[in-house]
Amino acid sequence: MSQDTTSPKARRGRPPASPRNTPDTRTALIRSGLEALTEQGFMASGIDGVLKRVGVPKGSFYYYFASKEAFGRAVMQHYGTYFAYKLDKHLLDESRRPLHRLDAFVADARAGMERHQFRRGCLVGNLGQEVGGLPDGYRQWLQTTLDDWQQRLARCLKEAQTAGELSETADCDRLAEAFWIGWEGAVMRARLERSARPLDTFIAVYMAGLPR
Amino acid sequence: MSQDTTSPKARRGRPPASPRNTPDTRTALIRSGLEALTEQGFMASGIDGVLKRVGVPKGSFYYYFASKEAFGRAVMQHYGTYFAYKLDKHLLDESRRPLHRLDAFVADARAGMERHQFRRGCLVGNLGQEVGGLPDGYRQWLQTTLDDWQQRLARCLKEAQTAGELSETADCDRLAEAFWIGWEGAVMRARLERSARPLDTFIAVYMAGLPR
Repeated sequence: MSQDTTSPKARRGRPPASPRNTPDTRTALIRSGLEALTEQGFMASGIDGVLKRVGVPKGSFYYYFASKEAFGRAVMQHYGTYFAYKLDKHLLDESRRPLHRLDAFVADARAGMERHQFRRGCLVGNLGQEVGGLPDGYRQWLQTTLDDWQQRLARCLKEAQTAGELSETADCDRLAEAFWIGWEGAVMRARLERSARPLDTFIAVYMAGLPR
Repeated sequence: MSQDTTSPKARRGRPPASPRNTPDTRTALIRSGLEALTEQGFMASGIDGVLKRVGVPKGSFYYYFASKEAFGRAVMQHYGTYFAYKLDKHLLDESRRPLHRLDAFVADARAGMERHQFRRGCLVGNLGQEVGGLPDGYRQWLQTTLDDWQQRLARCLKEAQTAGELSETADCDRLAEAFWIGWEGAVMRARLERSARPLDTFIAVYMAGLPR
């Protein structure tokens, strides 16, 4: 991810009057925030660190976002869009059989974690773990997002059922829910062990346990 | 858990010279710390909040523990002992068939989460999620603890295999690893949803997927 998309000329004094002039700074702040939140979660992430990565003064931050809370919401929004796109890229890929699409998503996510030396987790998992101390409304967003992911996966599992890859009696909604429950645990464990092994163990046992 | 095991007479001035006089205060601090860490994790837990729950002055804290880091270690140690006892109580219970022992552990843990309105998670899961920002050595403790739990469960699964409840070809070590990966995800999700449903979904899908 690009971490420096600010204008080459450093700005001084008051921030610019119109946000339309600096969409790149806002995007860079969100990207930096995403890195911080996937690495450290919400409470441990300071705005100073986010600004430092991007190289903008604090005044600029409050020009784009009313508060750390509003910033967190923007980061979640960005992540939600990104992740839904990534999921669809795999789960709607008709060139593969339905269950292979899930394998492809896992392989993609695994490669992403490896690329960042297993330092970054899932934003939803990180925030979910600290939900007791988060601003109002974050909990709802996390639940809605997980429900959305579950529905996308359940559709893919139902296609697998239609294609004869899964038993006719399989409860695809429940299997999809179990996938995301286990997946968040696997991502957490992969960060802990700094290894892809937990992701591999999880998906192997999940796939082997599906009713065929 | 008792939250007020300090002496009825409030102490003033210097803390007592010998820790042997006040084992209850140390225990109460560890219990209070355990509550804080299972609710909020390490980074968001302040020593002030821990002291407030117990009702002891800050000077006393540093009499018992050199630092927040040392305190965290003492809490982890306490939790590790408590959890291993709880696991063994169920997994070594010869009055039940091996797989029923695992069900009994889950039912016990589920009741515990319910009792605390799903506000408290697993200390290992909470700290695991914020491992990037934790003191050196915490990561090792978390991994060692999870390995220990896995070995205890793998022994139970091997007994299930001997008893004919599991397929002879089942890889009990891997199945035990997958249990703890999914369990941590389920506990996180139960806190998020403030409901036992994710625990129920996880264990039902895990049990149904075991090779018989």
